[in-house]
Amino acid sequence: MAVYTDVAAEDLARFLGDYDVGELLSYKGIAEGVENSNFLVHTGAGHFILTLYEKRVAAAELPFFLGLMEHLAGRGLTCPQPVKNKKGGMLGTLAGRPAALVTFLDGMWMRRPAAGHCAAVGEALAMLHLAGADFAMQRPNALSVGSWRALYAQAKGGCDKVHAGLSETIAMELDHLEAAWPRDLPQGVIHADLFPDNVFFLGAKLSGVIDFYFACTDTLAYDVAICLNAWCFETDHSYNVTKGRALLQAYGKVRALSPGERAALPLLARGAALRFLLTRLVDWLAVPAGALVKPKDPFEYFRKLRFHQAVKSAGDYGISA
Amino acid sequence: MAVYTDVAAEDLARFLGDYDVGELLSYKGIAEGVENSNFLVHTGAGHFILTLYEKRVAAAELPFFLGLMEHLAGRGLTCPQPVKNKKGGMLGTLAGRPAALVTFLDGMWMRRPAAGHCAAVGEALAMLHLAGADFAMQRPNALSVGSWRALYAQAKGGCDKVHAGLSETIAMELDHLEAAWPRDLPQGVIHADLFPDNVFFLGAKLSGVIDFYFACTDTLAYDVAICLNAWCFETDHSYNVTKGRALLQAYGKVRALSPGERAALPLLARGAALRFLLTRLVDWLAVPAGALVKPKDPFEYFRKLRFHQAVKSAGDYGISA
Repeated sequence: MAVYTDVAAEDLARFLGDYDVGELLSYKGIAEGVENSNFLVHTGAGHFILTLYEKRVAAAELPFFLGLMEHLAGRGLTCPQPVKNKKGGMLGTLAGRPAALVTFLDGMWMRRPAAGHCAAVGEALAMLHLAGADFAMQRPNALSVGSWRALYAQAKGGCDKVHAGLSETIAMELDHLEAAWPRDLPQGVIHADLFPDNVFFLGAKLSGVIDFYFACTDTLAYDVAICLNAWCFETDHSYNVTKGRALLQAYGKVRALSPGERAALPLLARGAALRFLLTRLVDWLAVPAGALVKPKDPFEYFRKLRFHQAVKSAGDYGISA
Repeated sequence: MAVYTDVAAEDLARFLGDYDVGELLSYKGIAEGVENSNFLVHTGAGHFILTLYEKRVAAAELPFFLGLMEHLAGRGLTCPQPVKNKKGGMLGTLAGRPAALVTFLDGMWMRRPAAGHCAAVGEALAMLHLAGADFAMQRPNALSVGSWRALYAQAKGGCDKVHAGLSETIAMELDHLEAAWPRDLPQGVIHADLFPDNVFFLGAKLSGVIDFYFACTDTLAYDVAICLNAWCFETDHSYNVTKGRALLQAYGKVRALSPGERAALPLLARGAALRFLLTRLVDWLAVPAGALVKPKDPFEYFRKLRFHQAVKSAGDYGISA
């Protein structure tokens, strides 16, 4: 939740002069997104989200993210649609940073998602996977199994201050996942960060999927495993099988999970839990003492990892194995 | 710039059920305001700003602030208008905090105000002073001359780390202002914090005055002095007499400054500079080392104070003394 860069009205008005969106009427920095600066912009043509890409997002990757949003929106997924400027481009420069304008989507993200929301997310995820099948660009997943050992090396020294024995648990898990990670499951475009704050609802109806800045080309079922972690646990870290079943069944109605994908689900869920445990650990340990902004607690994902380690088969997640 | 409190969609929808504003369509935490949490809310009835009052704003004072906004908006000042709930009240409770809904105003605040903007602010300030004349409620200024010695005591120990000799300068200025502070000038409702980020423009036209949470009953010309400090200095801390003249003349066309007010202007400007120097010093010194959020630099107001100390008469600000 951050606005890192302030934008002067005069500069924004000049930037918007390159677009057919009418006159600038207002803009507010919004507390959304962790990596970039986001503004809700009101112009004569309506409401838009303006994103300024801060240094952690590589400019070279922006055409993938923006092209993907355009591709998916064109195939009926309700996601932000990049607005093209008068020259046909989707990327400009503002306040010295790459900047893009996308359409605004109404809807709220669910702080306490119910099983119905989980079903809607499962359905949308499968639609995303199908819609992405003919997207021409590729982007390797920079945060998949091959990157975890380096993250662990970064966090190793501080691990046991967070939780006793955490370092050993991670080391053993890493060895196991690196050896057993499935390489032959269906690949394609995955969202890779489809947490509740990236999915909007109007009532029970899903109204938008946002934040494609972790999207990449990877194992489709791994995206399902990320969602199981993100949507189907309670605040006490217990797995809610009703929510899991709702998510998986709704996904399966749009895109059937193969027997191989089902069999790999416990392993993929362990991997997803470890990936978020590791990045949260790194962020947690990087914050100076006394800072006002607290990163997300890594412990939640340690508990989720423990759950998945005890899972026997996809049946434990709520669908037939 | 902060959102301190997160609000769940379900809770906000329930809160809005007490108002005639239609269905909740979206809401975003916005990076505006220092003391409270602010959200831009879209409902079937339009756009609103929702404010959750954090602990630094006393709940007992909210009826003054909200009543004042309603009073001023009723007299044609373009400021946010509190939305009444179905019971006729302007104050509710959300996420355990007092909360109010006000109308949304289009417009942008000027990072680099020109003389024309300063004139518009002078005119609006005078209109505010006239419109406030028959507002029935009173609120003493908790940050006027009587409070400065206590602020100085808080900052004293760290003063000279910010700037050598700062502590002595403040001590002498305090002695002078406490003895010479004018008590017999016209009083009324003042905004007391009319900085550029609290004034919106659409092009050259002022479209809104916001943030009445420092408003109080005090010397009207002191409010003018605050604006001179906030609007008429350049980024190199030099006074721009063209901007000052524009602000003062525009103010005077709506509400003439009396000879006594003109004569007191240099003293009031010194007081205004000291007030913001002191509160910024206290905030600056209270922030832990390594914090991600930097408060405003107090040094800017030290330089402004130095300027006002050398002023001979209102003539130096650009109007006849």
